[in-house]
Amino acid sequence: MTFESDYTQGAHPKILERLVETNMVQESGYGADSFCKSAQEKIRAALGNDSAQITFISGGTQANQIVLDSLARPFEGIVAATTGHINCHEAGAVEFTGRKVLAIPSHDGKIRAGELLKFIEDFESDGSREHMVFPGPVYISFPTEYGTLYSKKELSEIHEVCESRGMPLFIDGARLGYGLASDSCDISIKDLSSLCEAFTIGGTKVGALCGEAVVFTKGNEPAHFQNFVKKHGALMAKGRLMGVQFDTLFTDDLYLKISRRAIENAMLMKEGLSRMNFEFLIDSPTNQQFVILDEEFAKKLAKEIGFSVWEKCGNGKIAVRFATSWATEREEVERLLSAIERLR
Amino acid sequence: MTFESDYTQGAHPKILERLVETNMVQESGYGADSFCKSAQEKIRAALGNDSAQITFISGGTQANQIVLDSLARPFEGIVAATTGHINCHEAGAVEFTGRKVLAIPSHDGKIRAGELLKFIEDFESDGSREHMVFPGPVYISFPTEYGTLYSKKELSEIHEVCESRGMPLFIDGARLGYGLASDSCDISIKDLSSLCEAFTIGGTKVGALCGEAVVFTKGNEPAHFQNFVKKHGALMAKGRLMGVQFDTLFTDDLYLKISRRAIENAMLMKEGLSRMNFEFLIDSPTNQQFVILDEEFAKKLAKEIGFSVWEKCGNGKIAVRFATSWATEREEVERLLSAIERLR
Amino acid sequence: MTFESDYTQGAHPKILERLVETNMVQESGYGADSFCKSAQEKIRAALGNDSAQITFISGGTQANQIVLDSLARPFEGIVAATTGHINCHEAGAVEFTGRKVLAIPSHDGKIRAGELLKFIEDFESDGSREHMVFPGPVYISFPTEYGTLYSKKELSEIHEVCESRGMPLFIDGARLGYGLASDSCDISIKDLSSLCEAFTIGGTKVGALCGEAVVFTKGNEPAHFQNFVKKHGALMAKGRLMGVQFDTLFTDDLYLKISRRAIENAMLMKEGLSRMNFEFLIDSPTNQQFVILDEEFAKKLAKEIGFSVWEKCGNGKIAVRFATSWATEREEVERLLSAIERLR
Amino acid sequence: MTFESDYTQGAHPKILERLVETNMVQESGYGADSFCKSAQEKIRAALGNDSAQITFISGGTQANQIVLDSLARPFEGIVAATTGHINCHEAGAVEFTGRKVLAIPSHDGKIRAGELLKFIEDFESDGSREHMVFPGPVYISFPTEYGTLYSKKELSEIHEVCESRGMPLFIDGARLGYGLASDSCDISIKDLSSLCEAFTIGGTKVGALCGEAVVFTKGNEPAHFQNFVKKHGALMAKGRLMGVQFDTLFTDDLYLKISRRAIENAMLMKEGLSRMNFEFLIDSPTNQQFVILDEEFAKKLAKEIGFSVWEKCGNGKIAVRFATSWATEREEVERLLSAIERLR
Repeated sequence: MTFESDYTQGAHPKILERLVETNMVQESGYGADSFCKSAQEKIRAALGNDSAQITFISGGTQANQIVLDSLARPFEGIVAATTGHINCHEAGAVEFTGRKVLAIPSHDGKIRAGELLKFIEDFESDGSREHMVFPGPVYISFPTEYGTLYSKKELSEIHEVCESRGMPLFIDGARLGYGLASDSCDISIKDLSSLCEAFTIGGTKVGALCGEAVVFTKGNEPAHFQNFVKKHGALMAKGRLMGVQFDTLFTDDLYLKISRRAIENAMLMKEGLSRMNFEFLIDSPTNQQFVILDEEFAKKLAKEIGFSVWEKCGNGKIAVRFATSWATEREEVERLLSAIERLR
Repeated sequence: MTFESDYTQGAHPKILERLVETNMVQESGYGADSFCKSAQEKIRAALGNDSAQITFISGGTQANQIVLDSLARPFEGIVAATTGHINCHEAGAVEFTGRKVLAIPSHDGKIRAGELLKFIEDFESDGSREHMVFPGPVYISFPTEYGTLYSKKELSEIHEVCESRGMPLFIDGARLGYGLASDSCDISIKDLSSLCEAFTIGGTKVGALCGEAVVFTKGNEPAHFQNFVKKHGALMAKGRLMGVQFDTLFTDDLYLKISRRAIENAMLMKEGLSRMNFEFLIDSPTNQQFVILDEEFAKKLAKEIGFSVWEKCGNGKIAVRFATSWATEREEVERLLSAIERLR
Repeated sequence: MTFESDYTQGAHPKILERLVETNMVQESGYGADSFCKSAQEKIRAALGNDSAQITFISGGTQANQIVLDSLARPFEGIVAATTGHINCHEAGAVEFTGRKVLAIPSHDGKIRAGELLKFIEDFESDGSREHMVFPGPVYISFPTEYGTLYSKKELSEIHEVCESRGMPLFIDGARLGYGLASDSCDISIKDLSSLCEAFTIGGTKVGALCGEAVVFTKGNEPAHFQNFVKKHGALMAKGRLMGVQFDTLFTDDLYLKISRRAIENAMLMKEGLSRMNFEFLIDSPTNQQFVILDEEFAKKLAKEIGFSVWEKCGNGKIAVRFATSWATEREEVERLLSAIERLR
Repeated sequence: MTFESDYTQGAHPKILERLVETNMVQESGYGADSFCKSAQEKIRAALGNDSAQITFISGGTQANQIVLDSLARPFEGIVAATTGHINCHEAGAVEFTGRKVLAIPSHDGKIRAGELLKFIEDFESDGSREHMVFPGPVYISFPTEYGTLYSKKELSEIHEVCESRGMPLFIDGARLGYGLASDSCDISIKDLSSLCEAFTIGGTKVGALCGEAVVFTKGNEPAHFQNFVKKHGALMAKGRLMGVQFDTLFTDDLYLKISRRAIENAMLMKEGLSRMNFEFLIDSPTNQQFVILDEEFAKKLAKEIGFSVWEKCGNGKIAVRFATSWATEREEVERLLSAIERLR
């Protein structure tokens, strides 16, 4: 049994069912199939945004790279938290397409509107600015890499700063469902379109075998975007694979329902660990819990249960991550908690 | 019913079965799962090549872009037929990573060893060569974009030219199975490793939902290749999706068996059309058949049966493509032939 | 004595004089100096185009790379003759910035409006066009790499095709002066702004130590173009070096006067060679003359006089290039002709 | 009169003299001329390094971009100080070629061996390192962007860290002369080859009209480096322009002599300002002096004398830069000091 990540298991059974059911239906390739169209329609409905333009991309790094490359003008870089996924854990995929990441401070994974504004103003008042990379699209993740969430107010303030400068805001929603389903979240899926210029709806970590839905929220999809995707090597011949999956995820609110289950199990875990007086690296309201353990204890636990080592904390302590997912069972969390209880 | 391409349907049922069976097994991400490992083992066995290094990539253009970018030295471009997929139909994905495609003549989709050598010698004797793009990795497709095949002799000769100059040969095997299974093919899958430095085993068009296996044949996989794949945006979190599929395709020779079926149906179609005295644009021994039709007749036929328009031939004639696939039923070909008979 | 190229000598003496005179004047860097401003003013006057925007770049390949990269949209490649400098002799500099060169037929170095239109129409009617590189900016050289010239009619027709599709036309004027000064040229420098969206005025081969003036003809210089130039690594700290040179070249019509002298000497050479019944590879009206020689004779001549070997012609013949320049003296041509007379 | 930078004036008179003298000599292009060869020979002699490989590039950003792009392996980024020129003031030129800049702390412009090692070790022990950009070539500047210098011990320690990991060390010597000529410098030009894998000898800011000499110190110049330079758009047709300049700068020790003069004048200025009790932002032993002024006073001074505004210091204070150069006269510094004395 492992809690090492939220991508250790396959797909939600309903997705597999639909893949089996639709398997022999003949459809055109490259996203022109009826499943993609239906999925796009359902996502538009869920967003309450008729003018949303939706493209399915196989993975999250690919989606980030493509969207940011498409949004940035030639003189612009991408503003992101120092801890942002694009800045740390995408092997330089954004720079590979020629774009500098301009890192600003991270607070438990989040950037702050005020600091963003200060960064922009410093740039604007710098006499050497024509020799510098201009701040362009702003990248944030929701939830962040540390499981934290922006409040609606925080996000609105960031977006206002962006709008004041014509800088598009992009939200990496690789775990979007786990953010929206959190008790601490005051943002609904219908709010997203007005809060940013583009975002992704992560499938890979939320019930799908693969796939992220890229959403341009304001009819602002770049011209010939499919060609752009192809140029990046990312156009899938059997677009239906993503179409069927997202169609299923956006039928009967499945995406949010399974996200909710992951959150309930994460909260069960969090409460259990709190009760046992474990400290947390970060107070995360989502499916990733970062707990501080004695290294010795961690080693013992690792023999029974999988988790990720996050970082060293000094004094013989380490922070580890336990992640729940759409697939986590309540019983698994209970087994985790008893194992911890027993072994500590 | 459509014959427009070989990617109109989902996956071979055995693949779906295996996806369902293995769905809840917990595995690590990014290709470190047991399915990928098993698939790699089986592919190595099928190739009879213990030192083959195998990576799974979600799509063909992505695989071509990544492998060629990894094989070319800074001063080299990619040599390919004018009709090569990378030169025509990948939206400039190879150039997007900074590599020029150096096009040489195509003969029904194939390049010739003699012309390749001539091209290299002309370059070598050109006084301006330090201002030119050096010929580097050679790209060929097998079968070609026109369904044709290289004989073992032809391929050996091309490879010898490449070897004489230290230029790696890469074979795009997006439809590899349909080549190997053809009656006209004198190359076995075990021959491939000695005939090139890298090739792909196409899954997307041969029974999989998605996925190409990239094979470096001689322990020549570039250092930190996974990182390279990630930088290109192409590393899939649930590598298992490809692992399970290729593991299935390489169990009990499924890959070649289903390819064989596509070829049998293509030959049935070819014979039927020949019997009705249709002319062919190209004499293809594989699953793509390029037939010349009267435009008027093509329009009538298109109301009943799907196919791809390939090119105009003048005089009211057009060339169209009928493709069979692993999923094509004998009855479908028979229905196609009767429809043609009836409508002409 | 050599005629191998038009860049074998330094700069026109007036340029050196001005460099010496202005040497200790203190000026700001990066093109903000008074010499650049004055040069820009004079070029605008020479072009009769107040809205021309002018930037100085140190070399021709750099200028081509930067301008084409700035003009192409993400889905576009660069259309050029197969013989175009960017396609053959710039080491893939255009592809290095991610842009495919789409080569169309060359007729003695020139493309034809009709063939360009046909190429575009074929693209437009191709069902796979979203998987292809779109035709974008069109690159031509004037004079061409073979010394030939477009007539005003030919250039207008090409430009009309471009305009009909919103494709910018770019003229590589590395040897612009030698084109404009030719007797065969019916285009004046004042015509250029209406005939294309951007062009370069070559300095390196026409009297300067280095430098090309990039002209955007219609207020269409991309936003923050200086930043774009810097990103390409091409912004010179001492922009004055180019400013002083172009200011001098565009004072008292020096640019055209020295070009004219090169043409007169080239025509003297051409007539002399014709009189001696030499054949020409191409009938060039500009400063580059391509002559067919017996290989044996060429070897003898090479011991006395420098020239470039262009290509083999078979039957013991080769084509060689003799180039005159702004620096060529009438006596030098006469010496060349007598040497040839004497040695043949 | 301005001290705004060290590139406000043309070239050292001896360089202009040589340009005039050699102007009509006929030479081959692209660096194959006798002046480049002679300059290379003299630089090798000055370095005491027979195997040094030297290429001339027109500008510093271009040189940095090209060398770093040539040294980095596909999975590597460039390690630099947060304040490094490539990280701040080159418009993202390094990222434009696909390379991430990995910024580590700056101490008055310098990195520390210990912190570099810590950065590498953190990377090496990071479980996610295959998803990260690997530390590759290390970029430092000498003098730094703040005019400071590494001691021989500091540089040796950094180089040892690099060597322990096979990471090449590159020194940006845009102002190399002003570093070597400083009283505080314990590194000689002969030391450089053993202390790094590549460096540049800046001409643009040290007496030349343009040009940087790129030195690969250990026979480690990448294969076909000229082609690489061309691909970057940076190969100059009249390489002689740089050849003549560097040949002059390395004749009779001119490069160091003129650098020395700039330092003497900078020290005169520093002492004068110290005597008047001005505070310095940084204690710089080279030609750039960063002084803290009252904003009001700075405004008054700016009406008489040019300087660069560096940064705001709060409390009505700003830091400004006064730079001397090879061209600065003692009298100019004296005039600056009296003006300051008079106006304060």
